[in-house]
Amino acid sequence: MKAWGGRFEKRAGVAAEAFTSSISVDARMYAEDIEGSIAHARMLAAKGIIPADEAETIVKALDEIRREIEQGAFEFREADEDIHLNIERRLIEKVGEVGGKLHTARSRNDQVALDSRLYTARCAKAVSGKVETLQRAIIAKAKAHLGAIMPGYTHLQRAQPILFSHHLMAYFWMLQRDRERLGQCARRASVSPLGACALAGTTFPIDPSAVASELGFSSTFENSIDAVSDRDYIVEFIFCCAVLMMHLSRLCEELVLWSSAEFGYIEMDDSLSTGSSIMPQKKNPDVAEIVRGKTGRLYGDLVGLLTTMKALPLAYNSDMQEDKERLFDSSDTVEMCLEACTQMISTMSVNEEQMAANASAGFTNATEVADYLASRGTAFRRAHEVSGRLVRYCKERGVGFADLSLDEFRRFSEKFDRDIYDFLLPETCVRRRSSPGGTSPERVGEQIERAEKLLAALP
Amino acid sequence: MKAWGGRFEKRAGVAAEAFTSSISVDARMYAEDIEGSIAHARMLAAKGIIPADEAETIVKALDEIRREIEQGAFEFREADEDIHLNIERRLIEKVGEVGGKLHTARSRNDQVALDSRLYTARCAKAVSGKVETLQRAIIAKAKAHLGAIMPGYTHLQRAQPILFSHHLMAYFWMLQRDRERLGQCARRASVSPLGACALAGTTFPIDPSAVASELGFSSTFENSIDAVSDRDYIVEFIFCCAVLMMHLSRLCEELVLWSSAEFGYIEMDDSLSTGSSIMPQKKNPDVAEIVRGKTGRLYGDLVGLLTTMKALPLAYNSDMQEDKERLFDSSDTVEMCLEACTQMISTMSVNEEQMAANASAGFTNATEVADYLASRGTAFRRAHEVSGRLVRYCKERGVGFADLSLDEFRRFSEKFDRDIYDFLLPETCVRRRSSPGGTSPERVGEQIERAEKLLAALP
Amino acid sequence: MKAWGGRFEKRAGVAAEAFTSSISVDARMYAEDIEGSIAHARMLAAKGIIPADEAETIVKALDEIRREIEQGAFEFREADEDIHLNIERRLIEKVGEVGGKLHTARSRNDQVALDSRLYTARCAKAVSGKVETLQRAIIAKAKAHLGAIMPGYTHLQRAQPILFSHHLMAYFWMLQRDRERLGQCARRASVSPLGACALAGTTFPIDPSAVASELGFSSTFENSIDAVSDRDYIVEFIFCCAVLMMHLSRLCEELVLWSSAEFGYIEMDDSLSTGSSIMPQKKNPDVAEIVRGKTGRLYGDLVGLLTTMKALPLAYNSDMQEDKERLFDSSDTVEMCLEACTQMISTMSVNEEQMAANASAGFTNATEVADYLASRGTAFRRAHEVSGRLVRYCKERGVGFADLSLDEFRRFSEKFDRDIYDFLLPETCVRRRSSPGGTSPERVGEQIERAEKLLAALP
Amino acid sequence: MKAWGGRFEKRAGVAAEAFTSSISVDARMYAEDIEGSIAHARMLAAKGIIPADEAETIVKALDEIRREIEQGAFEFREADEDIHLNIERRLIEKVGEVGGKLHTARSRNDQVALDSRLYTARCAKAVSGKVETLQRAIIAKAKAHLGAIMPGYTHLQRAQPILFSHHLMAYFWMLQRDRERLGQCARRASVSPLGACALAGTTFPIDPSAVASELGFSSTFENSIDAVSDRDYIVEFIFCCAVLMMHLSRLCEELVLWSSAEFGYIEMDDSLSTGSSIMPQKKNPDVAEIVRGKTGRLYGDLVGLLTTMKALPLAYNSDMQEDKERLFDSSDTVEMCLEACTQMISTMSVNEEQMAANASAGFTNATEVADYLASRGTAFRRAHEVSGRLVRYCKERGVGFADLSLDEFRRFSEKFDRDIYDFLLPETCVRRRSSPGGTSPERVGEQIERAEKLLAALP
Repeated sequence: MKAWGGRFEKRAGVAAEAFTSSISVDARMYAEDIEGSIAHARMLAAKGIIPADEAETIVKALDEIRREIEQGAFEFREADEDIHLNIERRLIEKVGEVGGKLHTARSRNDQVALDSRLYTARCAKAVSGKVETLQRAIIAKAKAHLGAIMPGYTHLQRAQPILFSHHLMAYFWMLQRDRERLGQCARRASVSPLGACALAGTTFPIDPSAVASELGFSSTFENSIDAVSDRDYIVEFIFCCAVLMMHLSRLCEELVLWSSAEFGYIEMDDSLSTGSSIMPQKKNPDVAEIVRGKTGRLYGDLVGLLTTMKALPLAYNSDMQEDKERLFDSSDTVEMCLEACTQMISTMSVNEEQMAANASAGFTNATEVADYLASRGTAFRRAHEVSGRLVRYCKERGVGFADLSLDEFRRFSEKFDRDIYDFLLPETCVRRRSSPGGTSPERVGEQIERAEKLLAALP
Repeated sequence: MKAWGGRFEKRAGVAAEAFTSSISVDARMYAEDIEGSIAHARMLAAKGIIPADEAETIVKALDEIRREIEQGAFEFREADEDIHLNIERRLIEKVGEVGGKLHTARSRNDQVALDSRLYTARCAKAVSGKVETLQRAIIAKAKAHLGAIMPGYTHLQRAQPILFSHHLMAYFWMLQRDRERLGQCARRASVSPLGACALAGTTFPIDPSAVASELGFSSTFENSIDAVSDRDYIVEFIFCCAVLMMHLSRLCEELVLWSSAEFGYIEMDDSLSTGSSIMPQKKNPDVAEIVRGKTGRLYGDLVGLLTTMKALPLAYNSDMQEDKERLFDSSDTVEMCLEACTQMISTMSVNEEQMAANASAGFTNATEVADYLASRGTAFRRAHEVSGRLVRYCKERGVGFADLSLDEFRRFSEKFDRDIYDFLLPETCVRRRSSPGGTSPERVGEQIERAEKLLAALP
Repeated sequence: MKAWGGRFEKRAGVAAEAFTSSISVDARMYAEDIEGSIAHARMLAAKGIIPADEAETIVKALDEIRREIEQGAFEFREADEDIHLNIERRLIEKVGEVGGKLHTARSRNDQVALDSRLYTARCAKAVSGKVETLQRAIIAKAKAHLGAIMPGYTHLQRAQPILFSHHLMAYFWMLQRDRERLGQCARRASVSPLGACALAGTTFPIDPSAVASELGFSSTFENSIDAVSDRDYIVEFIFCCAVLMMHLSRLCEELVLWSSAEFGYIEMDDSLSTGSSIMPQKKNPDVAEIVRGKTGRLYGDLVGLLTTMKALPLAYNSDMQEDKERLFDSSDTVEMCLEACTQMISTMSVNEEQMAANASAGFTNATEVADYLASRGTAFRRAHEVSGRLVRYCKERGVGFADLSLDEFRRFSEKFDRDIYDFLLPETCVRRRSSPGGTSPERVGEQIERAEKLLAALP
Repeated sequence: MKAWGGRFEKRAGVAAEAFTSSISVDARMYAEDIEGSIAHARMLAAKGIIPADEAETIVKALDEIRREIEQGAFEFREADEDIHLNIERRLIEKVGEVGGKLHTARSRNDQVALDSRLYTARCAKAVSGKVETLQRAIIAKAKAHLGAIMPGYTHLQRAQPILFSHHLMAYFWMLQRDRERLGQCARRASVSPLGACALAGTTFPIDPSAVASELGFSSTFENSIDAVSDRDYIVEFIFCCAVLMMHLSRLCEELVLWSSAEFGYIEMDDSLSTGSSIMPQKKNPDVAEIVRGKTGRLYGDLVGLLTTMKALPLAYNSDMQEDKERLFDSSDTVEMCLEACTQMISTMSVNEEQMAANASAGFTNATEVADYLASRGTAFRRAHEVSGRLVRYCKERGVGFADLSLDEFRRFSEKFDRDIYDFLLPETCVRRRSSPGGTSPERVGEQIERAEKLLAALP
């Protein structure tokens, strides 16, 4: 069955049919399509547009069709183009001509928009849920290793000692922004387009709000042309996922670095590593690499849909059919990657000794020397310079700060006193950085508490 | 002056200096940098970290430096790397060593984050303001031509008669979403990072909230590492602009189409058109084409920054220096394009006759025929088929629906009656599509009113 | 079976297995994998690394496995990770421990590189073949309508009369460049990596050239690390496809425009159009729209792989596993789109009358007036200006050039003479543009001949 | 002066002028524009289209204008739109109305195509030259450290010992492909479009081949419409640069890793490092980071132009004006990055001891154990498994292979003999990997020789 067969002289060729048919892709939205149709049928009856008993027949048959699909008993046909026509064909098989009335005051343009809005809002919520799970894993790990000190890095150079938990929690806040964006995107997706019909609205006395509220939408469309030609919500969802993947790529880059023999900070669980077909000693952080690699996939999905939408005249154009594969690929990929990251974080073992050793080496406490002098009245820029000269002095002699005598310190500035040695311990460095949001154990403890409260407050 | 000169044996070579120096780019953020420094100096004094009189000296000098820059009297030096060090160098020239104290409890990492967050939030507001101006131009044009009927298109095929104002207003709602997104992005940018220092917080008893509130930020950072390594707000701002450009590209595509001899719906004002160096008759819609072309620029800026941020380990890395050019290019481009679109919409002349003529031709009222039958009890799918056969019948005879006799109509369905002729008029088609958000004059009038109220409610 | 099971204490969890397993994707390269293994086994025997009879056993079993796969009798297992290990597992099932020797002097790293290079080179050839088919369709259409005149456009404004065939042939030359690029890409893909092993080469006395020549590669790798970490050939292939899609998007944009009622230049064959579920009169150029929309998909695939490859340290990383889906999606999409375009071009009907009518209207011959004056000694810039004033004069009076009297012409320049009227005919305009590569029938005829010779010269 | 002023009633508004004017961008192509005009003027005279003495006057004036520009004496005016009209305005100022004749048989459409083709071909050559310089630096470094052993990595895990020079040379071959692609791109750019005029060719008896050969083009266009609407050559150039940047991003990622305290393989020259404003001990590999970050810029330029070109109908559209900024930004960025990489490679100091130490640790020789057994008749898969069990055995005892007694070895396989200890030395591992393209000193020496010959053979 073709919904538009009346006017044409020839039937579409088989190849063209395969090309324009989208059933293999959009079958995934069967639940949304049926829910939308049921709400539409009920509204049509409530407004007296079709008889109540006919609506009931339709609704009952749609429920059966849903079951058929879920039990694998439904026959999808490529010739029926898409999920909408496949279901409609089956409906008419079941209930006869009355099934044709379901299409009253509705077009495929607003129907497909409804399905994909519903689907997108659900995806956004599902992804958000998996982000939350990863956030919980991060908190658990941060709590398990509270007190572990590692070098903080900038430019991949050791900078200052920090708490490992503080570093991990940085990802919590990135993910928090991701959830915030996903939530706002879900709300923008949650605008019911039903009633826009082909592009101009309908002559039937429909009630779009009733449909919207039955389906759980927040609101209805303002302009029927916009309602059928807008795909912002999918573009925005993919963008949210792309930024999320960017965050995961940073995390996975670090997991790969930390798994290297050179860093040696973590060991991935065997269940998440693979070996080499030729090198028996290898234990590869494949999962982290694959997540990192899939970042490209999301960037590509984003570029893909933005490109497709560029310069399309209003209202609906078939180019937009590309939206669904981008949407499905994005949500599948990002959900899988979130699960993978949760597993890695939860199961990795942390080598606190190696972290601590690196935190003590490499003059990561040179800032302390500058701060020490600044807090004793030296202008910061000058204090910084003195500390820099001390580093050079030590490097030339192959020693660390702690190896210098007080006399040697004083050759660089008279403000140095015996308490400088205590200042130089990594524990002191970390403990003293107690400004709000800083790395001291007290602050990080508060940070974790606040994070837990934020998650607890979730609906 | 180099802020980090103490340790190095050689000075950076001239070529490397040019390569790593960003002053030619970031000089643009001088106002944000100075405002941030003033707030920082005041906080340092308020917390007793530096003496009040020294803070005053610094603030006064910074005010002078701002004037010097605005009057073109400031000498920017490439050797001073960036805007932060250029201003600091000048500060020290002016007030001596005390100027060095400004850097107490601050690092370039949190300073640059502060500048760019402040700048981004302002950009978002500026762009939003220009979007609003375009929205007003759209409303004005929609009101000026209320009643004009054009064919609505899907697949660039004439579909159903619609109001030209309804079509224009579709863009109002796209832009409304753009402003919503920009507002949320501005709020997310408005988180003060000052106090994160290099990456770990500081040992000084600072008050980040005071700085934040003096600068108008909504909140302060939760995690110092995230504070200096996050660039989500710029990525998100560029995304908002990219979607906005996608909307403008659709508008401009239509302006180009409508300016063609084939459509003939509008004529661009001479002030916005160019001619040909070889074809004297040409009047090209260059401005619309250029805006459409610049869509690529924004997509490129988005991909650029997403790529740069991919897989960067925490915290700061110099790769992130690329963020500012993407930010500046995006905001400049999109502001220019918004102005251009506002001018085009405001000054274009509309050929209502041509639109009306096309709305009457091409069986755009074929849906009416189907609706007519459906409202008289025929199942919609069947009604659609009858209408399709009528179209074919007319096409074979080279006539329109209106040319058919009632007898001819009845050969296709007995449900046709004399009132079908009134049904077929474009005015009737438009007027009868009075469902919420539909194209009838009444609905479009309400839509415009609602739009005006939304703009009036703006702060 | 895991190839690297010896060292691990736990087995990979099922979820991780699904995440890292690529068999559902790379099963597609089974033929390349088996061909590569056969060539490798023969080389091992020829060099005395394994006994000749064992090689024979292996080769025979591999041939059987190929048949099993092609007959659907092969059981692919996710637990066996990828196509390489699936085939190896089956091999060992069939021939026992001797099957394990196939992996001598080979790693999965060079094996997967071999498979994907062979596959990419074949894709490039297959795509090129479909480009050629489209080129032939273009030539056929150009020849069928030789003589038809249409307005040439710049800025979508009518510019000068041209031959429709000349316009069509512009696409021939774009596609010619596409084939050139694909050919060069195929040659760069055709470098055998076998023998690079994991990354460092092997201790066995292998003969990479023998393998390369048996498999039809042009050459072998120069550096074993580059051999296993390079994916340029896939990136380049996808780029070739992206540019090709850009060309097709331009063609399809024109097909959509030309199918509109406003242009009316072509009518798509019914077999390649769809209708509307709600508007019975619609005949939508869906196929052209879908091809245009899929351009985004290719751009996305390109960005995806470029992003994945960014900043990967040498040599192999699992991120690169993403390459294959991008490759398969690109080649599938572009092949489908090429077939679709070929069908559209071949079957579309051309409305020569409408084209001719438009070519006569709209002052497309204004250049002729300028050329006329220039060829009689007026400086071109001045001639252009005179012509422009004539256009304005006509427009104000609502007439065309042909309606002016000679006296009226002469009011603008004394150089006008009676032959100006002949100059203004579209046929004259086209015929006189006989410079090399120009639109005159003679030149276009030669152009088509040259194009046919180029295709005839193909291997 | 506007070249198309004759027909319009109003002058373009100032804002629109700024928006459509491209002089601030395309002034950069002044030399190409003037060379093209000179060649065109000479051809016009040679074909008798304009008098020889007038051509001489034009050529002389154009030469003067070039000098004016190069001496900074030329006044560029925004109102004159672009470089073409700025030069033409000045020409007419200098020689009067005869200057207007230069535009005979030429349009801005083919003129701008000529300029940008000439410019692109030159860019491709310039970039290629800088690639070659980097290749020479790589060879020099590889020769300076011939013999140094480092661990080869896959998945950032130590895999097998390799020569540092072998690793470096991998980049030589990537860059070699880049030069190959740039050369092919330059040849495709080198097609003269002059004579295509606006889009249809010209009525004047021009000689495009004469112009092409005077300007050093390889050939002339086949189809005038394609000649003015094609921008493949710029897209392709940017793609070549994007892949090149991808290669540099991999190199820079490694330079950053190697500069870390954890790897400690290299130290950047002070002239190419920067310090921290707050951490005196820092020595940051900024230059490498910035190059890596600029990869995003090139990917963005590529996406930008591909997007702009998507779905543009033939022939010229003003969207295409965006091509030049993308071109200039790409070539500038990539040239700067190549210079930066050349300096880094040339001046970095290499810590051979650290590399050697890491090459000995971590069971990088586990493959040898497997190879050892395989070469003594054990099937490879089994040999691999034995080696894996040995690794686990050693790890549990905290020892290396070399610490095991022969008895312990034999508990795992009877095939082990005393010569196993020699097999395990990194030097042996490297030396024995002497297959073609492998890492043995002999093979790497040959590789460097071949590389030098390839460079010596350059024109």
